[in-house]
Amino acid sequence: MKDITLKEIAAKLGISITTVSKALKNYPDVSEKTRNAVLELAKSLHFTPNSFAVNLRTKESKTVGLIIPEVVHHFFSNIINGIIDEAEKNGYLVFILQSNESLELEKKQVELLLNKRVDGIMLSLSNESNDDVHLKEIIKREVPLVQFDKISKLIPSSKVIINDQKAAFDAVEHLIKSGCKKIAHIRGPINPQNAIDRFLGYKKALEKNNIPFNSNLVFTCKNVTFDEGKQFAQLILEQHPDIDGVFAVTDLVAIGLLDHFNQNNIKVPQRVKVIGFSNWFMSQVMNPKLSTVDQPSYLMGVQAFNLLLEEMIARRELKPFTPRIIELPTSIIKRQSTSIEQ
Amino acid sequence: MKDITLKEIAAKLGISITTVSKALKNYPDVSEKTRNAVLELAKSLHFTPNSFAVNLRTKESKTVGLIIPEVVHHFFSNIINGIIDEAEKNGYLVFILQSNESLELEKKQVELLLNKRVDGIMLSLSNESNDDVHLKEIIKREVPLVQFDKISKLIPSSKVIINDQKAAFDAVEHLIKSGCKKIAHIRGPINPQNAIDRFLGYKKALEKNNIPFNSNLVFTCKNVTFDEGKQFAQLILEQHPDIDGVFAVTDLVAIGLLDHFNQNNIKVPQRVKVIGFSNWFMSQVMNPKLSTVDQPSYLMGVQAFNLLLEEMIARRELKPFTPRIIELPTSIIKRQSTSIEQ
Repeated sequence: MKDITLKEIAAKLGISITTVSKALKNYPDVSEKTRNAVLELAKSLHFTPNSFAVNLRTKESKTVGLIIPEVVHHFFSNIINGIIDEAEKNGYLVFILQSNESLELEKKQVELLLNKRVDGIMLSLSNESNDDVHLKEIIKREVPLVQFDKISKLIPSSKVIINDQKAAFDAVEHLIKSGCKKIAHIRGPINPQNAIDRFLGYKKALEKNNIPFNSNLVFTCKNVTFDEGKQFAQLILEQHPDIDGVFAVTDLVAIGLLDHFNQNNIKVPQRVKVIGFSNWFMSQVMNPKLSTVDQPSYLMGVQAFNLLLEEMIARRELKPFTPRIIELPTSIIKRQSTSIEQ
Repeated sequence: MKDITLKEIAAKLGISITTVSKALKNYPDVSEKTRNAVLELAKSLHFTPNSFAVNLRTKESKTVGLIIPEVVHHFFSNIINGIIDEAEKNGYLVFILQSNESLELEKKQVELLLNKRVDGIMLSLSNESNDDVHLKEIIKREVPLVQFDKISKLIPSSKVIINDQKAAFDAVEHLIKSGCKKIAHIRGPINPQNAIDRFLGYKKALEKNNIPFNSNLVFTCKNVTFDEGKQFAQLILEQHPDIDGVFAVTDLVAIGLLDHFNQNNIKVPQRVKVIGFSNWFMSQVMNPKLSTVDQPSYLMGVQAFNLLLEEMIARRELKPFTPRIIELPTSIIKRQSTSIEQ
């Protein structure tokens, strides 16, 4: 890259470097004529202040980091969308990294962002993350941090979350109200707090409605994929053919179930009703269309960035900052897969 | 953020700053004992070389920029996936920006990345882009550039593309071989080269098979959305109910068509056959499953980064670099929506 320096501008105009620098900064002790000459030449030479040098002075990089488990994922790509739209409005650039659900990679990426001196970090934990030493490191280094979706409750950072337990409770109660009496749950992996909370919501809804909890009806995903949905659908048909309702931890898994049921001529919603979680775009084009829990993913991204911005501003101004937790509302989207009209 | 400087380490150990600096760089004229003491203290103080200062020295930021039209888009999110995986392996961080299909925003983002002194830029043009003055600016500033998917042919940069015309030709010929005689094309907007090429491939396939081209059977998307697919499906039913095949510019639009046909009890593939483009994940879970053109999006991301890396290395070593064009292969995925078994 060509670098046009202050020195070159000064030489071309036969003035001092200090004068060029003052002119570019609009100092009053430079004549308007000189200032205009400097600005014009700078423009024609495509001069931009060296951003690295600016960084050294201000200690701000105007960059933030975002670590998410997966980019090719409807929920997370909507969050990215919200974050980068909001960052753009506020003049920040966003480094995006994906942990591919690996704790090791996530730790390495936190280190990388810290070394890069980003002004703040937003992060959703990988499914593997059962250790938060890297998050503690961010706090210790006094770098602003916002956790969202998959979080570590013990880390004292700002957070943007939903009430997973309540949302899951509502989903399962919707199945019960639609007539289901034997309800399976395809749950997420063991570590993530949101998988635990959704499982607890499922259990609570059964209890409240006097349906005995049966641990054999709970199936645990490892990778939370479409294929796992298909495999669990097959297991359900083999082991518990009288199951009449399924609550899946996310739409992708529910869509795997629907696909397998369709292929095997198991009528949804007549024989078994299915509800997912997250309201992926795909859910509304399935046949039958999938009932689900809507969670505002784009808004989650917007809020995550704005919480980070609050903290970055507070630190820049050396003001105290108390982490905040924002809980976003969810709602049940009723579609054909849980319909009682048959 | 707390900054532990070389000065502090030097003061704590009672040695000179030069010695600390040499120890951190493994210079041989520092004793092993001193080096170990420096490294241990640096580690315990979480010292990392100030990356801004490093940047000033090496003139490399180890960051690259990526501008795409949309993040929440199966094709582009797969490309992001390929790019950031490859960047990670090579020690680069990626700023991701989305133009939201706006030329104005795209221009602003190019300027932002140039000012940020990224080492290189990867870009897929917005649908609005009918002007490439901002790309010329990248070339003029001698910043490595790779265009992919939606490109400007006239800009002498490296490119990763597919043969859109051939791929579209194959898709339409597949419809013809499946028995279609009156084939509509839902095309992309006027500007993007790939929309033009897909349209030309459609036309060529008709010609080769002695089917007269009828411009009334070509419908032009503005935003390339699911809803546009539904609207064009309705138009087709109203204006040309004898159409027996549709080639859509992308799967999202084809899925809109399928959804509308399903809702209105128009049997696919019996009454009308549909083929999309891009092989979105969703296509395989539709009912009927959607035939489409597979284009290797993840690989496109990997190749885009690698071409950029080639150019960044060449420039760093002051070697000449000739832009390269990589054309990736495509293939037809035959599924239920074009099946002849009825």
